[in-house]
Amino acid sequence: MGENINRNSDNWSEEIEEEIGKAVEQAKELQEAASSFLNGTTSEEQSLRSRAQSLDSSLRRLRSLLHSDKSNLLDPKLDEDLQRARCILTDGDAASFLPVKPQGRFLRMFLGPINVRAARKDIQLKVKEEYNSYRDRTALLFLLFPSILLILRSWIWNGCLPAFPVQLYQAWLLFLYTGLALRENILRANGSDIRPWWIYHHYCAMAMALVSLTWEIQGEPNCSQKQRGVHLFLQWALMQGISMLLQNRYQRQRLYTRIALGKAKRMDVVWGETAGVIGQLWVLCPILFILQAFEAYVGLLLLRTALDGVVSEWQVIFCGILLVLMAVGNFVNTVQTLMAKSRFKAKMKRSKSKQEF
Amino acid sequence: MGENINRNSDNWSEEIEEEIGKAVEQAKELQEAASSFLNGTTSEEQSLRSRAQSLDSSLRRLRSLLHSDKSNLLDPKLDEDLQRARCILTDGDAASFLPVKPQGRFLRMFLGPINVRAARKDIQLKVKEEYNSYRDRTALLFLLFPSILLILRSWIWNGCLPAFPVQLYQAWLLFLYTGLALRENILRANGSDIRPWWIYHHYCAMAMALVSLTWEIQGEPNCSQKQRGVHLFLQWALMQGISMLLQNRYQRQRLYTRIALGKAKRMDVVWGETAGVIGQLWVLCPILFILQAFEAYVGLLLLRTALDGVVSEWQVIFCGILLVLMAVGNFVNTVQTLMAKSRFKAKMKRSKSKQEF
Repeated sequence: MGENINRNSDNWSEEIEEEIGKAVEQAKELQEAASSFLNGTTSEEQSLRSRAQSLDSSLRRLRSLLHSDKSNLLDPKLDEDLQRARCILTDGDAASFLPVKPQGRFLRMFLGPINVRAARKDIQLKVKEEYNSYRDRTALLFLLFPSILLILRSWIWNGCLPAFPVQLYQAWLLFLYTGLALRENILRANGSDIRPWWIYHHYCAMAMALVSLTWEIQGEPNCSQKQRGVHLFLQWALMQGISMLLQNRYQRQRLYTRIALGKAKRMDVVWGETAGVIGQLWVLCPILFILQAFEAYVGLLLLRTALDGVVSEWQVIFCGILLVLMAVGNFVNTVQTLMAKSRFKAKMKRSKSKQEF
Repeated sequence: MGENINRNSDNWSEEIEEEIGKAVEQAKELQEAASSFLNGTTSEEQSLRSRAQSLDSSLRRLRSLLHSDKSNLLDPKLDEDLQRARCILTDGDAASFLPVKPQGRFLRMFLGPINVRAARKDIQLKVKEEYNSYRDRTALLFLLFPSILLILRSWIWNGCLPAFPVQLYQAWLLFLYTGLALRENILRANGSDIRPWWIYHHYCAMAMALVSLTWEIQGEPNCSQKQRGVHLFLQWALMQGISMLLQNRYQRQRLYTRIALGKAKRMDVVWGETAGVIGQLWVLCPILFILQAFEAYVGLLLLRTALDGVVSEWQVIFCGILLVLMAVGNFVNTVQTLMAKSRFKAKMKRSKSKQEF
């Protein structure tokens, strides 16, 4: 019987030995297959990349020819053809092989040298969709947070905000703006043509949230005077929340319209841009300008409180200057966008009247 | 002559028309090539992925067989073979096709649903290398920042720290820990087996840096009493900087040794782990334990200052509790690692003596 067990265990150990030998073989084979696959795709990718790049540059050249002085000699249909070629290149699978904008310092600082670019167009679009829904969610919180604070202030706290909830709100702002700035940089790396100003704007907002955290929130006596800055800031945040919700709605709608018209790539982000669906534009544009004016006003009030000596911390001066800068930058960028729009419209009109001839 | 110009411009417009037609054709061709390439690679990738997964699970099964009761009946050489197969699978090109650990909530919260996993092994290793050099750079700053503050405190500021430089340091800590936590999550997604505790530890440190920013730094009178907490914290940070530098040196050396011995994958991060190069271990281990004891001591002192009523802010209590928790967690994890080490060593000894039989 002992012999029997021995033979059994011999069988067992032979089986295992065989299995392990097979596993080593499989590992080697898999390694070879993986390596040849990766090398093969690399060279094919390279060739697709260079084809995409040369097509991209020739499309650019043709466009500048079409828009030159002699363009009136050409068939307007050619412009459409060119736009179609551009669309195929930038909206289809080939877009994955277009040269990438280099990833900014901001991403490198936080994440190191990793690649955040999705290879597939459908994943890029998922990233964009998620960014939009993230903005929808945060816009709601953006509205909710300061309104709750302001309501509790006059209802329960008798006009004197306690420090903790305000600091919680400021920490949330810091997290929110960091997340937005990271996501927008990722979108940019994925081919979105978001205006750089909106990213800088979020860097400024990050700095302000960080500084406001160190800003001592003083209580009694003279609470309402000492908390003037915080109070104004919350009111501004409330207005900002409303305008964010409006802008989100407007831009999503406009983006879908533009995609349908073939004017926009689906990766475009047009936050703060202000033209297109005319009916809503008449609502949005005044609100944006009022908001910017109010932003500058809050900034100037903060500076005055600091210079009057009511609250003499450096944080107040810093936040005041930042708010004024952000208001000016927002204003300039909105006006630039409007001007670009009107130029574009005038041109479309001209080419249309030409076609009617 | 007017006719001549007309003919010239006709030629020119014909040429452009031809070029645009060609560009549209090229765009279509490129789109097709890109689409078929992407589809083709997807299916091949899928098959490599399933092969890697099945090999991975059979290696796991074989390992558990080898480590079962009957393992004494088997040739010790088999263990080596199995380890070799494992190494080929996890360290070679095939590793790109192994199933990924799902990316954590932390990354999703900051970056959205993007993929941070590098497809190629060499890029994964670059990410790891960069992480190491980032830690080296930050360890230096980690040492420099608090020492400058402490030197200036006793040299220029007469024992009373001004708020601004301390807050600057705290903001830098927040940025540093956020970056480290993001990078470690990215390393994990890239196949590193960094212990989860070290990531949680950085979440705690982030929370502490954020809370300490809201912590009012009081001045005269009784500056040294009121700033007791900050002072202790800076001393702890100084020690932490020294231990970080030592650990970085030790672990990098150990990692290279382990890679040379084939025991570690190059993606491993072994921060806070404490065994291997025996000579240095006798230096590192006591330093780690002293540091952990000092961390707990600082935490308890903070709690006492808060309970004595010297500084009654909630931030002091929160930071105190966090420091104690971090000290306990660090201690438990270090001891666990040491125990795992000694078990491993005992086992190696046994299998060695068996081989000598």
